[in-house]
Amino acid sequence: MSTIGARVTHVAPGEVDVELPFRDDLTQQHGFLHAGVVAAIIDSACGYAALTLMPPDAAVLTSEYKVNLLSPAAGDAFIARGHVLKAGRTLTVTRGDAFALKDGEKKLIATMLATMMAARERGLRD
Amino acid sequence: MSTIGARVTHVAPGEVDVELPFRDDLTQQHGFLHAGVVAAIIDSACGYAALTLMPPDAAVLTSEYKVNLLSPAAGDAFIARGHVLKAGRTLTVTRGDAFALKDGEKKLIATMLATMMAARERGLRD
Amino acid sequence: MSTIGARVTHVAPGEVDVELPFRDDLTQQHGFLHAGVVAAIIDSACGYAALTLMPPDAAVLTSEYKVNLLSPAAGDAFIARGHVLKAGRTLTVTRGDAFALKDGEKKLIATMLATMMAARERGLRD
Amino acid sequence: MSTIGARVTHVAPGEVDVELPFRDDLTQQHGFLHAGVVAAIIDSACGYAALTLMPPDAAVLTSEYKVNLLSPAAGDAFIARGHVLKAGRTLTVTRGDAFALKDGEKKLIATMLATMMAARERGLRD
Repeated sequence: MSTIGARVTHVAPGEVDVELPFRDDLTQQHGFLHAGVVAAIIDSACGYAALTLMPPDAAVLTSEYKVNLLSPAAGDAFIARGHVLKAGRTLTVTRGDAFALKDGEKKLIATMLATMMAARERGLRD
Repeated sequence: MSTIGARVTHVAPGEVDVELPFRDDLTQQHGFLHAGVVAAIIDSACGYAALTLMPPDAAVLTSEYKVNLLSPAAGDAFIARGHVLKAGRTLTVTRGDAFALKDGEKKLIATMLATMMAARERGLRD
Repeated sequence: MSTIGARVTHVAPGEVDVELPFRDDLTQQHGFLHAGVVAAIIDSACGYAALTLMPPDAAVLTSEYKVNLLSPAAGDAFIARGHVLKAGRTLTVTRGDAFALKDGEKKLIATMLATMMAARERGLRD
Repeated sequence: MSTIGARVTHVAPGEVDVELPFRDDLTQQHGFLHAGVVAAIIDSACGYAALTLMPPDAAVLTSEYKVNLLSPAAGDAFIARGHVLKAGRTLTVTRGDAFALKDGEKKLIATMLATMMAARERGLRD
C-alpha cells in the first residue's frame, strides 16, 4: 500500500479506512484510477478491518473476494472503508466500499465482499 | 499492465495469456507477489480474452469479478490465462486462472470468474 | 417464491424485503433452513429491488451473484432485504442481507452482492 | 437434494456429478428451471466433491459461492459437475458447472466458484 501512496486514516474495532490521493501513474487509458488499484485498496481496508478483531499475533490473508465496479474512478482522492460482518476463529467476512472524492462530493465507485483468513506468523495459506 | 512489466504472450479467439516475470517491488511482506497484482493480471487476461470476440471498435470494461487465492504467489514468473465462457452482445463471462512457474513446474495459485462489458469508445461505464 | 411460502413485506424505491416463515420441509440435515433457500430469498429481494427502479415493462434477470453464509439459518422466520447500490440502463448492482428472527432477536445470517439485468418481456438472457 | 429429485450420478476423488430431471414445479415464470435450483445443484455437486477429499468423519459447509447464470435453464435434464481446485485442511476451493441436456446436446448454463469448509460432526459454522 505504501508503494502506491495509500495510508490508513481511520481504525476502529472491525472498521478501517484506507485513503489514496489521485496519482497519474495509477490510471488506465481513460485517466481513471485503474480498477486493480481500486480493488487493492478495498481489499487492504477489509484485511486491516479483520485484523482489528484477531489475536495480537495473527496475520491476515485474503482467501477470496468479489468486487463490483460501479462507476469510473474519477476524483481527487479515494477512500476505501472495510467493515467486519462476521468475525470467526478462522474466517472473517468483510464488506468494503470505495468512494471517489471530487469537489466536496463523495461517490460510491466500487463495492466488495471479502473472506479473510487468520494465519500464523509465517503467512502461509492453508 | 506495461507499468508492472506484464505482457500478452498468447492470443486466440476467446483466450489470452498474460505473463509477468517476478519483480521484487511487487511483493508483499512475505516475499510473494502481492494478491492485488495477481488479481490484476488475471483480470487483464480475462478482459483481453473478451475483447477478442467483440466488434473491432469496442472497448471492454470489467463489470465485476470474484477471485479465490489458492496458494502463495511464489515463483520465477506468473502466467494468467483468460478464457471466454459466454460471449454476449453486452456481457461476456470469463474464467481466468493464474499459475506460478518455478523450477519447471506450473502451479495454480488463483482463479477468477469475471463479467466483462462491451463499451463504446469513451470507456464509460453504464 | 410463493411455492416456498415467501412473500414481499416491504417495497420502496430501490429496496424490497422478502419474508419467509420457518418450514420443516426446507431444512437440511441439521434442522437449519437450507443454504439454497437462503440464497434464493436474498436473490429474489435483490431482483425485486432492482425492478422498482426499472421501466414499467422491464423484466429482471439475475446475471450473477455471490453469497457468504455467515451463520446457521436457525429461527422462526427469515427476512431478506435487497437494496440497489447502482441502477444502470442495462445492469443494476444490488446488495442483499438475510436475517433470522428468533425470540425477538434479528441476526445476520447471509449477505449477497448481485448483478441484475433488465430484460425485455420475453425474459431471455443476453 | 432428494426433495427436488436430484441424485448423484458420478463420484471420483475431487469430482462429483449431480443430475436433475426437468420438473414443472421447479420452473420460474418463463418455464425455465429456477435460478435458485440451478445454483443449489451446483452448490451440492461442489460440496460433495469437496467431501470426497476430506477425512471420513468430516461434514462440509458452504462458506461462500459466486454463480454466473449464462443461459436460460431449458432442457430435459440438468447436470452439475463439481470439481476441487484446491483441497486444504480447513478450506476447499471448488469450481462447478451446470449443463442443460436437450435433444442430445449439452449446453453450459451456469458456472460457480465455491469455498467449502470442513466441519466437525455437528455441522455448525465457525
